[in-house]
Amino acid sequence: MTAIEDLIRLLKHLPGMGEKSASRLAYHLIKTDESYNRALGEAIAEIKEKIHPCPVCGCYTEDDICQYCAAEDRDRGLLCVVEEPQDVLSIASSGAYNGLFHVLGGAIDPLSGIGPDALSFPQLMKRISDGSFREIIIATNPTEEGDTTALYIRHLLKDRNDIALTRLASGLPIGGDLGYADKLTLARSMRGRIRL
Amino acid sequence: MTAIEDLIRLLKHLPGMGEKSASRLAYHLIKTDESYNRALGEAIAEIKEKIHPCPVCGCYTEDDICQYCAAEDRDRGLLCVVEEPQDVLSIASSGAYNGLFHVLGGAIDPLSGIGPDALSFPQLMKRISDGSFREIIIATNPTEEGDTTALYIRHLLKDRNDIALTRLASGLPIGGDLGYADKLTLARSMRGRIRL
Repeated sequence: MTAIEDLIRLLKHLPGMGEKSASRLAYHLIKTDESYNRALGEAIAEIKEKIHPCPVCGCYTEDDICQYCAAEDRDRGLLCVVEEPQDVLSIASSGAYNGLFHVLGGAIDPLSGIGPDALSFPQLMKRISDGSFREIIIATNPTEEGDTTALYIRHLLKDRNDIALTRLASGLPIGGDLGYADKLTLARSMRGRIRL
Repeated sequence: MTAIEDLIRLLKHLPGMGEKSASRLAYHLIKTDESYNRALGEAIAEIKEKIHPCPVCGCYTEDDICQYCAAEDRDRGLLCVVEEPQDVLSIASSGAYNGLFHVLGGAIDPLSGIGPDALSFPQLMKRISDGSFREIIIATNPTEEGDTTALYIRHLLKDRNDIALTRLASGLPIGGDLGYADKLTLARSMRGRIRL
């Protein structure tokens, strides 16, 4: 097997990459700058060695504690619960949230065999137990699994009247077109309509 | 800048890769097998060091002479002229061709400033000069630039009556749908129709 065929074979394992696109990408890399290839290659080879989950919140970090848990200027009374580590970056970069995070590691999905035991609920309850959070924002995906997970958290916290439990709003995406919105999203945005 | 942000920034430079897809790919790599990441990373980092153009035909190889030029069992009376090195792999793997190749390095495109001087026509004429080829198959793309290049080769070889000059057929792609074919392709397939 030649070096090019080898590269194509490896690229084909990436998500959404077929034979044709892997081949096109391989030949693109051959034409591109060698120093870029070396930088990209090393970044890919070393990414798993460089990062690990934050022991407090579960998002990825290179340090002992992640930048959000360690930050002095974030609101430590707010906790945003997300499914995956990448959701932390999405919400943090929206600029609309300045509290802490908790990564569940997925959503409850009985059909795929993912029950509450597979997710970091014990760690979540432990973090909440000292009473420092005044609001918990559930930012699981607006899917059946995400909704189930949100209901499960509401069940876990049913006796904690000191904590406000909220969920991210669902509705029409900004810049979207009403004609392209699916029925469920439209129904959700109608039920969740706000007074102007 | 963290290792993840660094990886996303590098991935974003790949063709067809936006912010979202680069981020999704980076988090995919974090979840995937470390040995795969190392293999892929090294393959990308080293690809340009491992390969070079074949001095005879111009396709990429790791050896002194490429596998097609060195092969004993290929028909050395047939020469297929293509635009790019990756076209060699496409045609070779179609299984319908068993001759030699010549890579031009592009197509004549005056609007982009690519004239005949930028392409490997001198090498092509030198290879042809010893009279060993009985047929030259022009496999440039079915585009205006590819057609121009094909006409230019016909001009170069106008005095070589010993060589049959052919061009890949254009028409409907196999498995395609007539309703989705563009007008130019339909017109080309009508003009090039064959008797059953």
